Amino acid sequence: MKRNVKVVIWGFGAMGSGMAKMLLKKKGVDIVGVCARGEKIGKSMYELLGVERGDRPEVIINPNIEEILTSTRPDVCLCATDSYTKEAFPRLKTVLENKVNVISTAEEMSYPQAQDPELAAELDEIAKRNGVSILGTGINPGLMMDLLVLCLTGCMMDVEHIEAKRVNSLSPFGPFVMQEQGVGTTVQEFEEGVKSGKLAGHVGFAESVRMIADGLGWKIDKFEQQMKPIVTEVDRKSPYGFAKAGDVAGVNMTGQGWVDGEVKIDMIHPQQIEPEMVGTQTGDYITIKGTPAIHMANNPEVDGGIGTIAMCVNMIPHIINADPGLKTMIDLPVPRAIMGDFRGQIKNRE
Amino acid sequence: MKRNVKVVIWGFGAMGSGMAKMLLKKKGVDIVGVCARGEKIGKSMYELLGVERGDRPEVIINPNIEEILTSTRPDVCLCATDSYTKEAFPRLKTVLENKVNVISTAEEMSYPQAQDPELAAELDEIAKRNGVSILGTGINPGLMMDLLVLCLTGCMMDVEHIEAKRVNSLSPFGPFVMQEQGVGTTVQEFEEGVKSGKLAGHVGFAESVRMIADGLGWKIDKFEQQMKPIVTEVDRKSPYGFAKAGDVAGVNMTGQGWVDGEVKIDMIHPQQIEPEMVGTQTGDYITIKGTPAIHMANNPEVDGGIGTIAMCVNMIPHIINADPGLKTMIDLPVPRAIMGDFRGQIKNRE
Repeated sequence: MKRNVKVVIWGFGAMGSGMAKMLLKKKGVDIVGVCARGEKIGKSMYELLGVERGDRPEVIINPNIEEILTSTRPDVCLCATDSYTKEAFPRLKTVLENKVNVISTAEEMSYPQAQDPELAAELDEIAKRNGVSILGTGINPGLMMDLLVLCLTGCMMDVEHIEAKRVNSLSPFGPFVMQEQGVGTTVQEFEEGVKSGKLAGHVGFAESVRMIADGLGWKIDKFEQQMKPIVTEVDRKSPYGFAKAGDVAGVNMTGQGWVDGEVKIDMIHPQQIEPEMVGTQTGDYITIKGTPAIHMANNPEVDGGIGTIAMCVNMIPHIINADPGLKTMIDLPVPRAIMGDFRGQIKNRE
Repeated sequence: MKRNVKVVIWGFGAMGSGMAKMLLKKKGVDIVGVCARGEKIGKSMYELLGVERGDRPEVIINPNIEEILTSTRPDVCLCATDSYTKEAFPRLKTVLENKVNVISTAEEMSYPQAQDPELAAELDEIAKRNGVSILGTGINPGLMMDLLVLCLTGCMMDVEHIEAKRVNSLSPFGPFVMQEQGVGTTVQEFEEGVKSGKLAGHVGFAESVRMIADGLGWKIDKFEQQMKPIVTEVDRKSPYGFAKAGDVAGVNMTGQGWVDGEVKIDMIHPQQIEPEMVGTQTGDYITIKGTPAIHMANNPEVDGGIGTIAMCVNMIPHIINADPGLKTMIDLPVPRAIMGDFRGQIKNRE
């Protein structure tokens, strides 16, 4: 590929703008358009990011995705707009029908076969008809609690049980995440938020469990998940969060995948502000029973925001290189950081 | 794919026979032929393995690979015969020219581009001409010090320096490995063995370093490796090895990949008998400086023999599914254990 890879970003919150900043430091790739709403419209991407434009062409935030895609003809569109497949679907369809490859940050899109098999089949069909491919990814789901688990089973003759545990700090996150995870609520408010669906907790266990099971060739009979408050015994304060003793400092999400009548996949994901205050060591942990056993730890955990931004950007060459259709992380080569020219990672192109 | 996957195994030492034992426990896959030499010729594979044949057809060890391949028409041939690309080349060529996919355990074949670019190009050309694909893999090179490193960089925006360290015990290994690694020799004998090339040490750093660099898009200016004796201060005894105090208990292999005038990739791989006697904790360790940093540990290390056998068997579906040509671990989807029917992992086949 001689010309630079062309990228459009749809959605310009923490994820979209983070991807833009990362891409601006890379070689052989240009951001040719940004689609966003509200008061960002009409502003310069460079100004919004606080990054020097230099001799790069201006990129003005435009709310009209069709206009952006038809005028710039990008190689890929990074969609950082949703968490759920159903919500993301019409947007993803629009991009695919413009014959543009897609990488989505929507957690459910990391394995849409899990909860929305009809929409997954439809996306696959639309992508194939338009000769492009689509992938959902991120740090979790996408790597730490699913793809990395599978990668480690690659050296195993036999797998008996999998435990994937991600213990992370919510302290770096802003007010929206505090609210969504119930930080600072009373236990009663938390329980009401779970019932009403107001508290999101972690989205992605159903997808991670199904990705692992399909990767190994296990059939999931039953999937369950639980969302419990992490009640603090001491006052905890983070830049955007505060939980007084007796209130909620975060969420403990757990999930189980049942195979042949027993739990074969255990997912454990407590997220809270200031975990160090109560002696909790954050990290990513993968424990696999089988031949041989695996006891992996990564301390501290990979930051969720940075990790998701990096995963989406780093998968750009793989989704451009892929055969048409809906892809998941288990269909494509392993993700890796791109330290050289993006064009060097693109196959068979002009 | 309706019929079972058909596998031929070439080489029936510890690796080849281990793959056979593993395959016999799996669903949807048959061993249809075994090629080996010497006193194994004419014997039953099942008798050699000490495994009940049941109602499976007999497999008699045959020294003639052409005869095996033409009579059985397998989907893949597992070649467990060599460590070096140059030695393996004529054998691999024979299999490819019979239009059979290949997985090789030869360490250098994990990335033959590193030291034998002409042979790598020739293998690629032969494979493409015959419509099949070829892969070299194993635990190391193949996963712990290269592919897993790359997989972890997938969540990184920027990589500054990589250290891959594998601290393993040689105690489970037999007399051949003791001899090859210099266990029990005096320091002087060890140094002479290194000079004469009699001591092999670890084969694969050149391949792992190049795989990592190509994966990230780094250009390696210089590659170096060192092989030093691990001198024991106490007498150490393993089932097949003995090193008295002052003699050699194993080998410390180190290697460096230089990029832009500095060491960016450090490989550290001490192998010895009875490391616990001197307080050495075995394990696989990956430390990556960058954004974010990675500090991964897997304790104890994945057993080298089991890991290599599993990697080769687990990659069977991926190499059958691959486009024709020479493939490496960074071209194919992540390896994973196969707990279901092998046929469920094969795409687009009758």
